Amino acid sequence: MRCDVLAIGTELLLGQITDTNSQWMGEQFAAAGIDSLLQVKVGDNLARIETVLRRMLADADAVVVCGGLGPTHDDLTREAITAVMGTRLELDDGVAEVIRQMFASRGRRMAENNLRQAMVPVGATVIPQTRGTAPGLICPVTVDGAAKVVYAVPGVPHEMKDMVQRAVLPDLLARSGEAAVIRSRTLRTWGESESGLNERLDGLIARLDDAGNPTLAFLASGWEGIKVRLTAKCATAAEADALLAQWEAEVRAEVGDIVFGVDEDTMESVVLQLLRERGLSLGLAESVTGGLVAGRITGVPGASEVFRGSVVSYASEVKFDVLGVPEGPVVSEAAAEAMAIGARRVLGADVGLALTGVAGPTEQEGMPVGTLCVGLAIGEQVLSHTFRLAGQRDQMRQMSVITALNLLRGVLTGDA
Amino acid sequence: MRCDVLAIGTELLLGQITDTNSQWMGEQFAAAGIDSLLQVKVGDNLARIETVLRRMLADADAVVVCGGLGPTHDDLTREAITAVMGTRLELDDGVAEVIRQMFASRGRRMAENNLRQAMVPVGATVIPQTRGTAPGLICPVTVDGAAKVVYAVPGVPHEMKDMVQRAVLPDLLARSGEAAVIRSRTLRTWGESESGLNERLDGLIARLDDAGNPTLAFLASGWEGIKVRLTAKCATAAEADALLAQWEAEVRAEVGDIVFGVDEDTMESVVLQLLRERGLSLGLAESVTGGLVAGRITGVPGASEVFRGSVVSYASEVKFDVLGVPEGPVVSEAAAEAMAIGARRVLGADVGLALTGVAGPTEQEGMPVGTLCVGLAIGEQVLSHTFRLAGQRDQMRQMSVITALNLLRGVLTGDA
Repeated sequence: MRCDVLAIGTELLLGQITDTNSQWMGEQFAAAGIDSLLQVKVGDNLARIETVLRRMLADADAVVVCGGLGPTHDDLTREAITAVMGTRLELDDGVAEVIRQMFASRGRRMAENNLRQAMVPVGATVIPQTRGTAPGLICPVTVDGAAKVVYAVPGVPHEMKDMVQRAVLPDLLARSGEAAVIRSRTLRTWGESESGLNERLDGLIARLDDAGNPTLAFLASGWEGIKVRLTAKCATAAEADALLAQWEAEVRAEVGDIVFGVDEDTMESVVLQLLRERGLSLGLAESVTGGLVAGRITGVPGASEVFRGSVVSYASEVKFDVLGVPEGPVVSEAAAEAMAIGARRVLGADVGLALTGVAGPTEQEGMPVGTLCVGLAIGEQVLSHTFRLAGQRDQMRQMSVITALNLLRGVLTGDA
Repeated sequence: MRCDVLAIGTELLLGQITDTNSQWMGEQFAAAGIDSLLQVKVGDNLARIETVLRRMLADADAVVVCGGLGPTHDDLTREAITAVMGTRLELDDGVAEVIRQMFASRGRRMAENNLRQAMVPVGATVIPQTRGTAPGLICPVTVDGAAKVVYAVPGVPHEMKDMVQRAVLPDLLARSGEAAVIRSRTLRTWGESESGLNERLDGLIARLDDAGNPTLAFLASGWEGIKVRLTAKCATAAEADALLAQWEAEVRAEVGDIVFGVDEDTMESVVLQLLRERGLSLGLAESVTGGLVAGRITGVPGASEVFRGSVVSYASEVKFDVLGVPEGPVVSEAAAEAMAIGARRVLGADVGLALTGVAGPTEQEGMPVGTLCVGLAIGEQVLSHTFRLAGQRDQMRQMSVITALNLLRGVLTGDA
């Protein structure tokens, strides 16, 4: 089964926005075992959309057309698909009613052109809209005697994702005659390289290759770590979930020490949850990261239940005067420990976590760029650790955020 | 002149990386008055690359092929272009020598397959490599009797950008018979909507339309504000620069109050520079932004000359105990002013800047999501301002960062 992607929008070609939709679809299709071999961007031009779509359908079994479903005269996806189907557009009363009700419920007047979004090619099936005003479409086409399909989905990412997961993927899988349910589980890891992970999971990967289901993929995600994704295809959701649970346990048996979370977890959400469960509050002292750790933590709704604050002690005097760090080298484990103790005291927190280091561009106090000292004060325990991180300023600082949080996570869970 | 873009790489189709290269090229081409009407991603498959390239050349005057120039067997761009040119590959001794020397200078052994990167289609011109090991190519082709051109550039973004600016754009402009030099100037603005800017620049835009050169474009950049870009095409760089200077002055005459910087300036780099010039140090107190302002400021190399630190006072008790904020509502102008005074005192800074507000998901102390109070203590002056910002948690917090820094900027320059 091959499903290519056509993204519509002059703004994509002008570089005003990035097409992340086709990337996301490519990732979903790959996980589902569907090939996506050509992805194209074209502008809001009816003749060009139609020409490109015809060419794409000559090679692929299916094409998702993304965008161009809005209410304005620039939105031409419906017309182009209708031409390729060799049919005509008709008002769908059900869709029109939903659009009218949506405007009424918001107390807004509906401009008449919104009904363009209720025009459906004869022979197409509507994918009901749940979030936006534009429904999606499933449009059967015959190309040189072969039955193929064109899907139309909105260009707004969350609407597109909803429709692809809810309607496009199931339909593609049904057409391919494959098992109807795809489920995946992502294990988030930190602290091992991709090749290191590969090596540690060597035997398991060989067994998975033999089994054929689920599949395992590594997704390197920079300073977010490496994701290990298991994807199962089964006849039922229950079967898929059971298979995933079995293999997740196998993966954890090999590399559980570096797994910090699953699916939508982030390092900061995991650390906050661990602190919450233990009834502990957190205070930070940040030098090298300059507030980035606090910024990440406070990005999680509900952080205020656990997080007291941070002393961003960028100038050395702030370390001495506010945090009570003894005079001496400030990029050192001794300074990191004193900062952690100071943060706990000043901020009235149960746990103090501190970061000091060298982000560059130049070395500091004879310490090379990439040096990170993390200090931690928790209960009676005060500890510190020095890391050598790669990367230039931005990358080194972001790596520092997750490295320090991971150290705290390890201590809280007893893994470190 | 129409130049389409073909991005090569199976990893692009699998969604493992985002194709930002074609977006960037689209933006550059648009600024230079070159149409880019089709942008395609295809995998590392020789037959498919060749087929797609032939189809693209049927419609476009030029195609940039991006990626697939590396040394491995997966790198097939050279072979595909050679097939389309109807010629053969030959080792270019000059390129080979540069590659050999690069390995020697790094003290590394050169694997023989690196010489694949020195293979050049007969009839093509080399774009010398200055950063990576792969040179680019300018490849003339004849399609149905028409002279067209294929460019090959590496997929690594900074190598690609270098070659497009240095060789591809000048060559495209020369072929189009247009003036040879394109220069642009971007004015960074904050505090006005795109439609508001449009209205204020209405007359000027009409005069520019008549003049035809330079062109003016708005680039909405979310919480980075709106960029106003002037692009001049002239016979010489000096002419273009003079034209840009003239029209920059005209734009500033209309909307200079909201221009905070040019080209690569950011709000934080501008504020740091203003403080540096005035010999003032900065201390922050952050609640709603939770360290994001400090994180942005410390992202600028050299921030330590000016920036003392931040007290991230997320818990109310930290505001009271550390910053000396009087008990009372913490999302208020009074609290913001007390935080600013406290930050200045605690951090030993000349200027105190404070942010308190409601990022959501729910209201706080009866204040709606989106409320931002900024306090500023500078010299004898203590002031505050309340803003109502749009957007959910992340967006509101990021808008708060630039809003507060812009307030400080205004006071420092005397614009506010």
